[in-house]
Order: sequence, then C-alpha cells, then structure tokens
Amino acid sequence: MSILIVGSTALDSIKTPKAENPRLLGGSASYASVAASFFTPVNMVGVVGDDFPKKYVELYRRHQIDLEGLQIVPGKTFHWSGEYEVNMNNRRTLATELGVFETFNPVLPKSYQRSPYVLLANIAPALQLHVLDQMKKPRFVVADTMDLWLNIALKDLLRLLKRVDGLVLNDSEARQLTQEDNVVVAAQKIHKLGPAYVIVKKGEHGAILSSPKGTFICPAYPLKKVVDPTGAGDSFVGAMMGCLAGGTGSFESRLRQAMIFGSVTASFCCEGFGLTRLATVTDKEIDRRAKELVAMTSW
Amino acid sequence: MSILIVGSTALDSIKTPKAENPRLLGGSASYASVAASFFTPVNMVGVVGDDFPKKYVELYRRHQIDLEGLQIVPGKTFHWSGEYEVNMNNRRTLATELGVFETFNPVLPKSYQRSPYVLLANIAPALQLHVLDQMKKPRFVVADTMDLWLNIALKDLLRLLKRVDGLVLNDSEARQLTQEDNVVVAAQKIHKLGPAYVIVKKGEHGAILSSPKGTFICPAYPLKKVVDPTGAGDSFVGAMMGCLAGGTGSFESRLRQAMIFGSVTASFCCEGFGLTRLATVTDKEIDRRAKELVAMTSW
Repeated sequence: MSILIVGSTALDSIKTPKAENPRLLGGSASYASVAASFFTPVNMVGVVGDDFPKKYVELYRRHQIDLEGLQIVPGKTFHWSGEYEVNMNNRRTLATELGVFETFNPVLPKSYQRSPYVLLANIAPALQLHVLDQMKKPRFVVADTMDLWLNIALKDLLRLLKRVDGLVLNDSEARQLTQEDNVVVAAQKIHKLGPAYVIVKKGEHGAILSSPKGTFICPAYPLKKVVDPTGAGDSFVGAMMGCLAGGTGSFESRLRQAMIFGSVTASFCCEGFGLTRLATVTDKEIDRRAKELVAMTSW
Repeated sequence: MSILIVGSTALDSIKTPKAENPRLLGGSASYASVAASFFTPVNMVGVVGDDFPKKYVELYRRHQIDLEGLQIVPGKTFHWSGEYEVNMNNRRTLATELGVFETFNPVLPKSYQRSPYVLLANIAPALQLHVLDQMKKPRFVVADTMDLWLNIALKDLLRLLKRVDGLVLNDSEARQLTQEDNVVVAAQKIHKLGPAYVIVKKGEHGAILSSPKGTFICPAYPLKKVVDPTGAGDSFVGAMMGCLAGGTGSFESRLRQAMIFGSVTASFCCEGFGLTRLATVTDKEIDRRAKELVAMTSW
C-alpha cells in the first residue's frame, strides 16, 4: 500500500571531526522517503527552490518516489549546516537559511489524499496539522517531531497529538515533553496526550515502542563505525512506516517487524554522509542485516 | 553445578534524592552471590569484621550460600557510602573505610578449589589473580572490574585478562581500557587482551556480548521506577554466572539465556535499597519477568 510522507526537503552542509560535505541532499522528507522506498511506493510532499540540483531529483526518481507533491518554486532551497563533536552524539547548528521553506504550504495532490499510511515527518506541527486536514480517512498516521517544536510550537504540537495514531520522538524529547525522566513512564504520559502508539528513539541504544499490546524493545544494529548520524531518525521512521504499509500479518507484529527494518535501514544511513550510503543500499543488504540483527537478539 | 564467587563484602550507606539508608548489606560478592543463588549453589569467599551484623549472615544462609570461605576477623567491616544524583545515573563516593578489607587475603577452602564456574567479582585484580592461583582447572572464569582498577592497577588487570575466559565491564570502562569510543570495536580490542567473551554493560540500555559465536544484544528490563541502582551490575553478572552454571544446552545459548536472567535479576535489585528487594524476590517473580522480557523482544 502507498504511503504519504510530508516533511522538509533541504540541502545540508555537514561537518564532522573527519570531513566536511557541503550541500548534500537532506531534510526529514528526503531521508524518510528514500528509506520508505525500499518497502512500498512513496508519495512525497515538500518544497525546494529553483537552485535544487537536478541530480537530487534524479535520486528521488531512482527510488520511485512520486514527485507530484514536490513543489519547485523560485528562490533558494532550505539550507542547514551543522557540526558534530568527536563522539558523534552531540551536534550544533551552524546556520539555518529557510529560503522557500519559510512560506511552505503543503498542498496534497488529489491522488495523495487517500493514502492509507501517513508519515508527518519532522516539520512545524502547524504544517503537519494542515496536511492532516487534507487527508481522507487515513488508516494510520504517525508524526515525528523535534525539540525545536517543543520549545516554540508546543500548543500546535499538543493539538496535533490529539489527531495522530503514533508519535515518534527521541528520549530527551520525551523527557522534555512530559517532565518525566523515566522513559517508560514518559511514554505512558504521552499516551494520555493522544497517540495510542509511542516510539521513543534512543540512538545507538535502539528504540522502545509502547502500544496497546504492550512494550517492544527494538535493538539498534551495532555499527563499528558511524560516519554521519544526520537523518538516522528520519530514516528509521521512514523505513518503519514503509515496511508497515507494505507488510502483512497482525498489526502489532507488522509494526514490530517494521521497527526492526527501520533500525537496520537507519544503520546504513549512518555509514555515509547525508543520504550517500542509504541511496546506494540494496534490498539484499537490508535483508541480510535484518537477519543478522535477529540472530544477535536470539538465544 | 556449583559456582565460586569472590569479591567484596561490605556495609553500604546509600543516599538518593529521596532517602538515606545507612549500613545496608553490600559489596560485589554479596550482590553477586545472592543473585546467583536463585540458579545454583554458591560458594562465597570474602571478609567481614566482627561488627558484621548477624542478620546479614542469616541473609546469606537463607540463600543457601556456603560461608566456609567467609572470613570473620577482628576489626571493622569495609564501609562504603555514596550519593546518587537526581537522574540516578551518576553517583559519587562520600567515604570509603576499608577496615578488615585492607588486608584481605582470599584463601579458598579446599572444597572450593574445584568449582567449575568462577566469578571474580569486583575487587583488586591482584586479589583476583591470587584466587585464580588456587583454582584447579576451572571450566569458565569471568572477571568483573571497575574504573578504579583501570586507574590504579592496570598492570595487574592486564595480567588477569590473559588468564580469564570472560570480562564484564561497563561501557565507559570499555572505552577507558581501549581508548576506543565505539563499543563494538572496543570489545574486539579487549578480545586481543585475552578474554574470548566480553560483556559490556550499558545500564538501562542492557548489555552486549561479544563471543566467538558472534554478538548478542541483551535488553534491560524496562523499569518504571529505579529506587537504587547500587549493585545492579554485580547482580547481573552473579545471576548470569549462576544461571550459566545451572543451565543445559549449547554453551552459547546457555550464556545468552543466562544474560537475560542476569538482566531480569538486576532489575529487581534496582527496585529496593541495597539488597532489600533482591533478597526477597521469588523464583516465580524472576521467571515471570523473564517471560515478559522475552515477549518485549519478540515480533
């Protein structure tokens, strides 16, 4: 089944202690859509400027991402630049130039409005709400978010939470949102804000799902080397939603399996700058790593 | 099969943001032995002073811990006091009074010398080596350690590592020992120092085993409330070794299962001050929580 993904489409300049890469393809919708594309057809909604490199449009196309919803408008593409510290866990933003993203109005092509699965990747909650307003009876809607929106758009975010089935956020964001240090209790508090499904991402320590059927502890694939973690969270949730949309079986077991594939897909993302590694990964490589991860958790 | 556990036996005064508990039973051997006792007969070696409360000797006895190796000598029992910060992850030592522990010479009763499974719980590596010198052909020897020994007794520790089958340490210690940030690579470097089995503990994020058969990702049981994490690591490795000694099947699958039970047993430890919760837990409660943990990792 097809999935709708709305989020940011950007150019990222990423600096790590070992290298510097300017103007890579980035943005939450880019990562999530490429990651989802390994599992199901993707309809993507985003905005780029007329400076957006053709090679990145080609990259979307190579992954059979439907681009009817990608607005190309006069002006500059959203540009983010950031720098990672030595341990690759902490990063700081060097510059943010919103460009055409500043006036982004996500309009859904008619053919997108009945997508059964919807991923509201990380953008302002007001835009996520605006997308939901255009949907006709989606089956399963998941929103991703970030600390920025907790700080400057909490009211919109709380309105959004009442209308989504699932929320994905990382552990520090879960703590910030609930004022609760314990992740398990934080997830329970988030359920009370709306979402029946709460997924707390813990980076290299995996993720935890809290659902009506209980708790699922999803491991991360243990990498020997992290080149660039940018977009790993977006890739995780993109692959997860893609896998869920494409899967069969009971919903809970599909969701758990989807999280495993999300985890594996995110691990590839970390192995290259921006989308460079993820964009070249094969279905076989994903399957092999998923099998490895299962072996690493079996006894 | 029986297991030999050597380590510290102490009185701990523990302060958390919510409470203060003086002179609780503590020490690596105490935690590890009580944890192991749920799975197999334990022979314990340690030293206490003549101030050691009889109720704690009774506690050992209630867990069928053989005390032929527990030296009771004139003087004061090792006393540690520490304080936890609000998030319960960071603690600082307020005072350490070594007492009779200062001159501890672990002498193994003859009946202990042929124990097939040996846990060298956290004490000075020189003492761990001295215990090994007295053993007759042990089948599987695991050492635990801590940052203190990396700082002040690295040479002894490196000698020890050449003679043990397994090393258990936490993630920050693994980084310190290997000067390597990545846990997977750090484990590989530790193999080169001797141990074929390396277990890196990650607290609330579980533990990772690196063995000749591959990697095993062991989840932690997600607790809603941590009362006091003191001794959780000792309980983990104690229960793991006890379960391993008592288990059947291939070594690798027994070890993985043993880690799961170690994880579950450690979770009970965190639910009370010192050993108070662990000392009252039942086999049924451990089994139930192990089944829950398995359900939380299945899909």
